[in-house]
Order: sequence, then C-alpha cells, then structure tokens
Amino acid sequence: MSNLQQKYLDMVNQSLESYVYPVTDGQDIVRDAMLYSLKNGGKRVRPMLTLAFCEVCGGNPHDALPFACAVEMIHTYSLIHDDLPCMDDDDLRRGKPSCHKQFGEANALLAGDGLLTLAFETVTKAENIASADIVRAVKVLSNLAGCAGMIGGQVIDLLSEEKSVDYNTLHCIDKLKTGALIQAAALLGCIAAGITDKSILRAAEVYAENIGFAFQVIDDILDVTADTETLGKPVGSDEKNEKSTFVKLLGLEKCRQLANDLTDSAVSALETMPGDTAFLRAFAQLLAKRKQ
Amino acid sequence: MSNLQQKYLDMVNQSLESYVYPVTDGQDIVRDAMLYSLKNGGKRVRPMLTLAFCEVCGGNPHDALPFACAVEMIHTYSLIHDDLPCMDDDDLRRGKPSCHKQFGEANALLAGDGLLTLAFETVTKAENIASADIVRAVKVLSNLAGCAGMIGGQVIDLLSEEKSVDYNTLHCIDKLKTGALIQAAALLGCIAAGITDKSILRAAEVYAENIGFAFQVIDDILDVTADTETLGKPVGSDEKNEKSTFVKLLGLEKCRQLANDLTDSAVSALETMPGDTAFLRAFAQLLAKRKQ
Repeated sequence: MSNLQQKYLDMVNQSLESYVYPVTDGQDIVRDAMLYSLKNGGKRVRPMLTLAFCEVCGGNPHDALPFACAVEMIHTYSLIHDDLPCMDDDDLRRGKPSCHKQFGEANALLAGDGLLTLAFETVTKAENIASADIVRAVKVLSNLAGCAGMIGGQVIDLLSEEKSVDYNTLHCIDKLKTGALIQAAALLGCIAAGITDKSILRAAEVYAENIGFAFQVIDDILDVTADTETLGKPVGSDEKNEKSTFVKLLGLEKCRQLANDLTDSAVSALETMPGDTAFLRAFAQLLAKRKQ
Repeated sequence: MSNLQQKYLDMVNQSLESYVYPVTDGQDIVRDAMLYSLKNGGKRVRPMLTLAFCEVCGGNPHDALPFACAVEMIHTYSLIHDDLPCMDDDDLRRGKPSCHKQFGEANALLAGDGLLTLAFETVTKAENIASADIVRAVKVLSNLAGCAGMIGGQVIDLLSEEKSVDYNTLHCIDKLKTGALIQAAALLGCIAAGITDKSILRAAEVYAENIGFAFQVIDDILDVTADTETLGKPVGSDEKNEKSTFVKLLGLEKCRQLANDLTDSAVSALETMPGDTAFLRAFAQLLAKRKQ
C-alpha cells in the first residue's frame, strides 16, 4: 500500500466513526449495529476515491471527508439490507456474522435505514465547501444511490435471480448495483474541489465506470479461484445460488482479459484530469490485482 | 375542509407523483411499489404543514413543494418498513394490502429504501430557494428522520414491545417516532421561506411537538372507540398486540382532555409567527377532532 493510500485509509477510518454521533439512552443498539457494519473491515474503495479525486482536482481532501464517509455509509447500508433474509439471506459478511445475525432482523433493517439517513446528514457537515456544491453532492449521491442507480440495479438483480441472464443484462445490473455508487464517489470528490467543468466530471465518471465494471468481473473471478479464508465469504456461492456471472458467460481467461482492458480504459480516462493522477492510476491497477 | 386546505392537498397530490420519475425498463416494479404506497390515501398532514408554514412565513408555498413531498416520502417509507414481517408484520395499511403483501418483501424493502433516497433528491429540486436553505433543509430532515429522531423512536418502540412502559417512555417514543417528522415538516416550511429567526423556528417546533403528541393520543383513543371501516385498520390492535397506550395509562377521559390541552398549546405557540395563522389554528383543531 502506498503512503498516500495509507493516508486516505487512515483519514476515512478515523472520521467515519465520529459522524455516527451518540443518541438518546436506550437507542444504543441501532448505533452499535451501524458501527458494527461500518467497522467490519471494508476496503474503503469508494471513500478513498472521493478523497483522491478531490486532491487531483486541486481541493483539500480533508474538506471532502464528509462526502467520502457519506458514500461509505450508503455502501454499508446497502450490504446490510442485501444480506437480510428477504434479500440474499447471507449469514456471513467479510467473515463475520452479518448485521441481522448479530443484532436481529428488525435492528438490521433500522441500522440500514439509519446509515442511509445519516449519509445525507453527513454530507451537510462539509466545511469550506460552498452550499451550492453541497446541494450538488446531495443531488448526485441520491440520484446514483436511488432507483436510477444502485437500488435500480438491485431490483433488476432480484428479477433475474435463478434465471440465466445474458451479458447485456448482467452488465446493466453491475453498472447500476456496483458502478453507480463508485461513480458517485468519484464525482463527489470533484464536487468537493468545486469542479464544474463537464469534461473533468465526465472523465471521473468514465474512470469510475471502468473500475466499477472491472471490480465486478474480478469478484466473479475470485468466487471461483479464491479460497474462503482469503475471501472472507464462501467461495463458489455464485454457483450454489445459480447466479449468472461473467465467468460463466465468458470463461475465466476472457474475464481476466476484460478486467485488464477495463483497467486500461480507466487509466486512459485520467488524461483529462487536471492534477497528478499517479495515485488513481496505481489504484486502478491495484484493484485489478486484488485477491479478496 | 377549508378552501386553503383543499388547495394544499391538491398541490401535494398533484406533485408527489411527478417526483417519482420513471426508471430504466425492468425496474418498474419498485416504482410501482413506491407509487402504490405514496398514493394509498394518506391524510398528507406533514406536507400540508410544510406548505402552510411556508405561506405563514411569507414564502410562496409552490416553492416549498419539493420539501413537502420529501417529508411525505419519508413518512411513507417509514410505514412500508414498519409493516414488514420483521417489524410490526401488518397485512393492512389504510384498508388495503400493505406494500409487502402486494409486492413481496424484497420489493417492499427496496421501495422503502427508494423513497428515503428519493426524498433527499427531491429536496435538491427546490427552485427559487437559496442553496444555503436547501442545505439547511437536508440537515433538518436527515437529523429528525434519523437515529436522533424518527428511527430512534422506532428503536425504543421495538425494545418496549410486549413490555408495559410508563408515561415518560411512551411520550419519548411518540415524540421521536411521530413527532420528529411532523417537526421537520413545520421547520422545512419556515426554511423554504428563508426564515432564520430562532424564535419563529422555535414556535414552529412547539406547534409541531404539540400537534404531534395530540395526534398520537388521538390515535390511541380511536383504536378503542372507532370502527374498523372508518379507521381503515383493525380497531383494538393495540390491545391485541399488548401495546402500551395513553388510553391504558390515563383512561379515555383524561386522554381526551390531554389532546385538547395539547391542541390549545399548539395554537398558543402560533402567536410568535409573523403571518396569518388562521389556517394553522383551524388545522390543529381539525386534527384533534378527526375520526380516522
């Protein structure tokens, strides 16, 4: 891990918890559930992207922390709700009991709702950022996390369950379910730096779309090639759930090639960005090589 | 219903749907579920309050419509999640199948998440309102709908289930679970009108706190005195669920007195407001006399 990556990671981990403010006596259980899932060893890909894009665009990454943490809260809520019995019914998340296994279904539902709501409150806590840019951040985040983005992907995914879907449908699901929030993370970094130039915002989107797509292809590869301990979740679960994956549709070798091509496209998109993009280039390559 | 009340109601009902924008093909089911619950005959108490407070404070109620609709979306999502099997497990809502009975649990969960997310996107669609005021609206709404407000009330309510709770706990639950969002509705009206004067914002809060409390006391009264057809949900459900209510703690007669006293306090709080408060006075009294 580079020094800069460690710096971003520390910034996120140190401030994430501080935004989950204490509540009235007797409600601690929902706060505990929120913190349990927030602190459950996520890779922090999204919030690191927000800080990195902010810095590349000439902003101060400290100013972007509330935006970065908001994106991570939304990612975390989506995992909590995704694991619920009425959805994927997963008992494990990153090698530990999923939120509803630890706190019960009702508390997990409310912890998810709480994190989603807190994400928007956290966005408004940004300092040194113009109100117009905070409004833009709320707009982009709610749009890409909502029915036109992440939730929409979830819905198509549900409808496709136990059906074999084609490449285009699978791509559409992943673009929305995983890609949309990664895109929001990148855009929020640019917005935190006050960027309004459409070509820069578009470059951030293209970078995010490509690493988001690569991320999902690699997830599918790891589901058949990794071991459970490294992955922190059962391998072969896609097979077990009769889930369509890129590996099933294209085969392992073509998937590896696709992930590399997507990473190259992400890196090329950075040419339009104003600042030093070394970190973002290395980050895309690191994600392509991840083992978990 | 007064002309002004009808006007506010029409404004809300006409615009609410327009904010639930169409989504990609194949995701229609979640939009259908969101619209089903949004259009399921709510009284629109909260959005009407937002419009009324905006107008009393000298603003144009049309400008406050996105704020008003956002509050109603949050109210609706909370009902959808509340009715889920892991929460209250209610099959009926306002005399019709609850969202998960109609669309299945997973879609109901996502419809709730979708409405909560859309609420914040809708707030950002306000026109003729300064960015700083939109940021204030997001802050107030997320705070009062979150763990320090509505969700917090839900959590204490869950912990108190099948236990007999005292007056103070019951008051605390209702203040958060019902009162907080009514307070947000009133405050968002003032914010839409650009109000920053703390005494006016405080007056709106006190009015909202009192009608919110009265609203819950009357709910408890109706649960033992109304008939199922008028109420749109089974009467006596509090008794069946062994739920603590104000009627059980204080008796019917004292509850009626309490509701009247709270309504009087709400009306008194309006003296600090700048404009013509006739509508808000009549509205508080109308809520106190409601039969469903």
